[in-house]
Amino acid sequence: MTDLLIRNLRPLGASATDMLIRDGRIAELASGINASGVPVEEAGGAIAIPGLVEAHTHLDKTVMGMEWYENAVGTDLRAMIDNERRARRQLGLDPARQSMRHALALVGNGTTHIRSHVDVDIVNGLSVLEGVLDTREALRGIVEIEIVAFPQSGLMIRPGTLELLDQAMVAGADLVGGLDPCGIDRDPKGHLDAIFGLADKHGRGIDIHLHEPGEMGAFSLELILERTAVLGMKGQVAISHAFCLGMPDWTRVEGLLSELAEQDVAILTTGAPSREVPAVKRVLGVGLRMGAGCDGVLDTWNPWNRPDMLDRARIVAQKNNMRADADLALVLAVCSTGGAAVMGVAGHGLEPGCNADLALIPGRTLAEAVATGGPVLMTVKGGRVTGRDGKPLREVS
Amino acid sequence: MTDLLIRNLRPLGASATDMLIRDGRIAELASGINASGVPVEEAGGAIAIPGLVEAHTHLDKTVMGMEWYENAVGTDLRAMIDNERRARRQLGLDPARQSMRHALALVGNGTTHIRSHVDVDIVNGLSVLEGVLDTREALRGIVEIEIVAFPQSGLMIRPGTLELLDQAMVAGADLVGGLDPCGIDRDPKGHLDAIFGLADKHGRGIDIHLHEPGEMGAFSLELILERTAVLGMKGQVAISHAFCLGMPDWTRVEGLLSELAEQDVAILTTGAPSREVPAVKRVLGVGLRMGAGCDGVLDTWNPWNRPDMLDRARIVAQKNNMRADADLALVLAVCSTGGAAVMGVAGHGLEPGCNADLALIPGRTLAEAVATGGPVLMTVKGGRVTGRDGKPLREVS
Ligand SMILES: [Zn+2]
Ligand SMILES: [Zn+2]
Repeated sequence: MTDLLIRNLRPLGASATDMLIRDGRIAELASGINASGVPVEEAGGAIAIPGLVEAHTHLDKTVMGMEWYENAVGTDLRAMIDNERRARRQLGLDPARQSMRHALALVGNGTTHIRSHVDVDIVNGLSVLEGVLDTREALRGIVEIEIVAFPQSGLMIRPGTLELLDQAMVAGADLVGGLDPCGIDRDPKGHLDAIFGLADKHGRGIDIHLHEPGEMGAFSLELILERTAVLGMKGQVAISHAFCLGMPDWTRVEGLLSELAEQDVAILTTGAPSREVPAVKRVLGVGLRMGAGCDGVLDTWNPWNRPDMLDRARIVAQKNNMRADADLALVLAVCSTGGAAVMGVAGHGLEPGCNADLALIPGRTLAEAVATGGPVLMTVKGGRVTGRDGKPLREVS
Repeated sequence: MTDLLIRNLRPLGASATDMLIRDGRIAELASGINASGVPVEEAGGAIAIPGLVEAHTHLDKTVMGMEWYENAVGTDLRAMIDNERRARRQLGLDPARQSMRHALALVGNGTTHIRSHVDVDIVNGLSVLEGVLDTREALRGIVEIEIVAFPQSGLMIRPGTLELLDQAMVAGADLVGGLDPCGIDRDPKGHLDAIFGLADKHGRGIDIHLHEPGEMGAFSLELILERTAVLGMKGQVAISHAFCLGMPDWTRVEGLLSELAEQDVAILTTGAPSREVPAVKRVLGVGLRMGAGCDGVLDTWNPWNRPDMLDRARIVAQKNNMRADADLALVLAVCSTGGAAVMGVAGHGLEPGCNADLALIPGRTLAEAVATGGPVLMTVKGGRVTGRDGKPLREVS
């Protein structure tokens, strides 16, 4: 593990201080630290934040660094799924190479932890997962990658998928994924019994993509909550998107939120501008853990997202109509410590004893950093400098 | 006026060609143009688009280049208005200097035309307008600025404002502005009779901020349409924001759109992520002119917006859930020729005979340019290079 002395950084925008890192952990914060033999970095008064956490993405999908992908698919969810499964082969999308490009771009932009869903389906089998597992291994010590085995093409509607998910858990996936039990799989009981059964069998958590809006999504949420309670999986379930929590019926959402809080279900948001989304302050207000993610970046689904959690903080905050400085800082926390709490990362902070996982960002205040965006000045993982000026130090291999 | 030969540009992403500019207009598009004595720029295969048009902003409000403004106001419209009127003086916000900073930042980002609302109120009188008029004069030949005299603090609720608006029209404002006749001014008949009367008196157009959602906004729209018809102001009225056109009632919106089309009322959108907004394809589908704008940039209202119409195209398209390449190109057109049509700019295009007002942008395709964003490589106004690599060539004075 690594020792490092960073001079003249401002923790969360406070006054400047030095930070001594010993064995990959924050050992001391003080002015004028003396530590002979320890390498020194000068932060120049930059703001330090805990490492950014990309808590919802798809490392296996990006076409970054390849030909421009001309999208003529439109926005129907089923059409986008079918298009992608075909395009993977037509484009020759190499999951190991592409996931490394994507993950390293995130590292350059201040990211120290990633939760990625990875497609498992009866056409591509476990080949996509294997590529991302290679990247995870190759980037150990640079960025931590948690993998959700994800039935993107559907589970009940494509027999054989459940067996592949089972194998994926043995092969190294960390969590069981799910997807729109009503909207895509057309069999909410079957879908949820299957993935909860699998999670129970392997003793792992669950992260479910829930795009279903309004009452349909609320229904699926209730089914998820019932199974979470019965199986004693409190604290082990996360809902990605959860668009239904953005429905206008305030009272209905309040009821759902309090049930989610009872089972400590985590919420992951992308702040999707064109959809109803869970309100950050309401979710945090009932004590739920909440993280954020950029979702797929430059893929066959959409060209918008960037591998950049500062950009994502802007998108989530704008969607939430947040403008006050305190609110911008709140959203930035969702994008770092919030995501870490969802992923169960211990010691993600700037206090002595915490992991030395952090980002130095430009700006006079936290709010300005969120509003202005990067490039992130420096990314540090376990005391090792992994990125500078928006670029990763490790090359794609 | 200016002559210029630009080699190796790709009009709207088509194959590379040379462009000869004579006397500020596009004279010829062909490969291997010979024009001795004419200065040459090499575009390196960059995409050329008609100059970007910032069709809804507030040049008088920005704090760009000043201390970071800590926002603790929240999001109530009335509170933000009152806060700003006070802050103008407390911050020492110089409208001439700030509007020049803002306008030049837009120029660096590919903008050739700006429509700016400018506050007129009984506290600040015409002083804000005078500052922006100075900037307009100083930047003649670099960027065209159209000014809307804007009763930001209300009209009927603040007696004396109407007389100031009248003076503003004499002093050099181009259009009469209005603002939420119900929501802010609490007197829709009084407000609209006043501004339409003023526009009629001066023979000028109108641009009304309409944040009012749902049926309240629809009611105000109807009152606007009635006055437009009675006064024969077809084609001379624009609605900014028009959030009510984003209401879920599809049939109701269809009726409003067809009435707007009958009076050739233009729509200006910001694609506000946290609000219901007019759908780009529906508005264009009934033949309405539509432009876009970034709204206020880094001001006491919000920290989000950037003086960058490529960034705005991304925000508008994301809000509209657009993903296909053709749709991205469509939104980019709204941000250039669309805004020009609203402003009544003739000859805004890339064909021979058009004004040589254009931007060179990076990317393999138009869609990639919108998705990836700037920096814009070169801005050209009347054949004169006004910006390079995202920076204006003229300095703030
Ligand atoms: Zn996803
Ligand atoms: Zn405005």
